[in-house]
Amino acid sequence: MNTRTPETRQERKQRTREELLRAALRLLEGQSFSSLSLREVTREAGVVPTAFYRHFDSMEELGLALIDESFRTLREMIRAARADPSTFEHVISNSVEILVRHVHENRLHFRFIARERFGGMASIRHAIRAEIRLFASDLATDLVRFPYMRDWSAEDLHVMAGLLVNAMVSIVEELLDAPANSRGAEREVRRIAEKQLRMILLAAPAWRSGPGADA
Amino acid sequence: MNTRTPETRQERKQRTREELLRAALRLLEGQSFSSLSLREVTREAGVVPTAFYRHFDSMEELGLALIDESFRTLREMIRAARADPSTFEHVISNSVEILVRHVHENRLHFRFIARERFGGMASIRHAIRAEIRLFASDLATDLVRFPYMRDWSAEDLHVMAGLLVNAMVSIVEELLDAPANSRGAEREVRRIAEKQLRMILLAAPAWRSGPGADA
Repeated sequence: MNTRTPETRQERKQRTREELLRAALRLLEGQSFSSLSLREVTREAGVVPTAFYRHFDSMEELGLALIDESFRTLREMIRAARADPSTFEHVISNSVEILVRHVHENRLHFRFIARERFGGMASIRHAIRAEIRLFASDLATDLVRFPYMRDWSAEDLHVMAGLLVNAMVSIVEELLDAPANSRGAEREVRRIAEKQLRMILLAAPAWRSGPGADA
Repeated sequence: MNTRTPETRQERKQRTREELLRAALRLLEGQSFSSLSLREVTREAGVVPTAFYRHFDSMEELGLALIDESFRTLREMIRAARADPSTFEHVISNSVEILVRHVHENRLHFRFIARERFGGMASIRHAIRAEIRLFASDLATDLVRFPYMRDWSAEDLHVMAGLLVNAMVSIVEELLDAPANSRGAEREVRRIAEKQLRMILLAAPAWRSGPGADA
């Protein structure tokens, strides 16, 4: 809903914060986070260096904010897609669609994530790993609602969640490798992705009667 | 077999080449490849900068040599482990054991690989992706020898191989995160890794009667 009232001080501050984040993302397309300086970011954002500290205590805090932006909405959307565990098929195609769309709309975020996951700055690296682990635990909690996995041990649920998250990470990597605006390439990644997830989940009924099953 | 004859010119040259590769690996533990200079490498190796060109045309060629070192032996060893497709179990535990040992013995190589897979230098990045793809195609070719997958389409074999390779990549990442010399941590990674691969391969019999099967 648009508002016609003039921008408040709070809104202005919020806008500058977002400009700093966007400026950092643009610069990060071509360089690693540890090589990015505060001055480069403020110059790119068109604000004076000292203004930076009204929004972030450090470059590290800015990096953590970018990681948070990348994962929070994605996690919420995919959790919603899993809310109705009617069928594997349904959950799979929804989750893949959300993932592909989200990476498409936040390409610079995920390029940054992909690079810094093994990058030079430990705090950033650990924050990214933590988000991915959180994603997997979330998923494990939901998997138990599928009839096939109702009786699985916590470890088995986490192994299955780990496989699905590995697949999703590789899907993101494929998407980042694909030409930026090729819908065709995205469709193909999506088709293979759904097949991968379907194949992983096919193990569920077999595993039930296999090792580690309590049923 | 040791030889007592004095080092030949050829042997000396080979040794200097290896010193340059080792020196680069040591320096790469703390920095990205694109930020590494030829002078740093020659200084670390204790040779004059001009000597570098007797061994490599460029830093890029040195980087590609490191990638080749990392994958060639691993691929050969794992291909050997798959040569006897008697049982999934057997192939899985052998492959995981080889992978864990190889990463343990070539930790610096794989730290370099993990970082540069999304790093700044395109030629290095692409060489790493190509090695991983080659690894997957190798695997797909071998999977067809398992009774369950004999009748699978080429695409399905590649999807399955992709899942197994994703799992192996995440195993390598886990190993690199684990404390350098904790055998206990390695054992745990290995136990979960075998469970992951077992779970993936459990899909095979189900898939046979599922979508994409030709049987």
